[in-house]
Amino acid sequence: MITTKSIKKIRKSVSKARNNGKIIGFVPTMGALHKGHLSLINKAKKESDYLVVSIFINSLQFSPSEDFKSYPRKIKIDKRILEKKKVDLLFYPQADKMYGPDFSSFVEETRLSKKLCGKSRPGHFKGVTTIVAKLFNIVQPDLSFFGQKDYQQALIIKKMVKDLNFAIKIKTSPTIREKDKLALSSRNLYLNQKERKEAKAIYEALSQAKQMIKNNKRNPKKIIAEMRKIIEKRPRASIDYIEIRNANNLEKIKKIEGKVFIGVAAYFGKTRLIDNIIVNKN
Amino acid sequence: MITTKSIKKIRKSVSKARNNGKIIGFVPTMGALHKGHLSLINKAKKESDYLVVSIFINSLQFSPSEDFKSYPRKIKIDKRILEKKKVDLLFYPQADKMYGPDFSSFVEETRLSKKLCGKSRPGHFKGVTTIVAKLFNIVQPDLSFFGQKDYQQALIIKKMVKDLNFAIKIKTSPTIREKDKLALSSRNLYLNQKERKEAKAIYEALSQAKQMIKNNKRNPKKIIAEMRKIIEKRPRASIDYIEIRNANNLEKIKKIEGKVFIGVAAYFGKTRLIDNIIVNKN
Repeated sequence: MITTKSIKKIRKSVSKARNNGKIIGFVPTMGALHKGHLSLINKAKKESDYLVVSIFINSLQFSPSEDFKSYPRKIKIDKRILEKKKVDLLFYPQADKMYGPDFSSFVEETRLSKKLCGKSRPGHFKGVTTIVAKLFNIVQPDLSFFGQKDYQQALIIKKMVKDLNFAIKIKTSPTIREKDKLALSSRNLYLNQKERKEAKAIYEALSQAKQMIKNNKRNPKKIIAEMRKIIEKRPRASIDYIEIRNANNLEKIKKIEGKVFIGVAAYFGKTRLIDNIIVNKN
Repeated sequence: MITTKSIKKIRKSVSKARNNGKIIGFVPTMGALHKGHLSLINKAKKESDYLVVSIFINSLQFSPSEDFKSYPRKIKIDKRILEKKKVDLLFYPQADKMYGPDFSSFVEETRLSKKLCGKSRPGHFKGVTTIVAKLFNIVQPDLSFFGQKDYQQALIIKKMVKDLNFAIKIKTSPTIREKDKLALSSRNLYLNQKERKEAKAIYEALSQAKQMIKNNKRNPKKIIAEMRKIIEKRPRASIDYIEIRNANNLEKIKKIEGKVFIGVAAYFGKTRLIDNIIVNKN
């Protein structure tokens, strides 16, 4: 595995691989790799011939009150994991090379990114689309891989790619879960034992919703009320949002029908966790 | 010359040329080609092996009160000109293919683009950076060419390329002028005879500034006052701005020193014209 901070070196390696007829895959991450990332990397290995992974904790997607400084940094362990996975190239850029002091160009999706997590975290998705556009321009992959746990993010990236004509195909990969079904996230590391135990309420609520829909409950409000009860039972939980939306455009719906997104964002102690499921109902 | 509306076809032709070791040049235009465009195309022909020109009148960079509908459209003549120039590929996209009804992703430079023309035309440069990012992603050139007449635009494009890591080198080419030194512009076609005659006042004012600086006048305010007089003598003229700025970042300056941008935007009748010169003073 080549590890580099140099944009020139990346471009050289990638264009050499491309000239050799290889399909370039790319998995952007913020490091602190867990099994969710590994599942993305496994999928990317299967579907491409030359795999680039980036590790960059993108300050631009954190608001001043958020956890940029405390976000887990585990570069040595991450490197070992990626080497073992036979990743071809690790891009590990310096922050000041990605954002100079006079940085002033941004990519913004203005519809999907105003909803759900975008409402709770203003500027977050603008930070995401900007860094992803930069990384796409640096790596110039054929395929790029995103996790379904960040469903809204993946949808926004797909929209950006379509609107701005990036020559890149976006692939998504299912959420990976702990034994008690908590979705894997680097932020799970923040949870103390009690919070960790209570956090499984998120998936319990999602499962409850799935079951209700299976039983032909069609009213989002009633389903959300039941989900809310499940999470509110936990003393360390505080709900940011529970929403049931059209899974294609994240618009509100009055009746469960077609492809539906069911999403939860909730704090356990000070840690904000998100999770979702997609349900198809005819 | 291949003429196409198809993004797929462009990508195929360009990647074929690139695989053959050719350097890809790109000149984006809004058509109504004049000698200014031709000078860009000549430069691009010299510096690249495969030349793509686009003609697209970008609605996104016009405000509702501006001249999108009346902007000159001369596709047949333009095609003939480009064929004669031995351009390899003309991209002539349909508006609804560039901006679908749900289009929601934008590229915005937030510092340079707030000044000068950006103040008079809010949203204009956001429209420019968005379409240029799209065209860059479609064509994927090695080099792209912009005219110095739109100095601020070229500066913003360079900034976008740097900030967002486009793998493209931006080249600029000097302003081409009529015999009376009016800068060539597709909008000159709007001028009636009297307005056309008065419009040469813009370059007279710029020349006056140049002469004053040569004579060691260092106070921008005094120079601007003299420029203003020259343009205000014309009854059909109305000044939008006259500015002397640092040519690298367009910041205000108190003293003429180093590389300096001298810019004018003025209406002649209803037609808004811009022009500029760059002066180096040690």
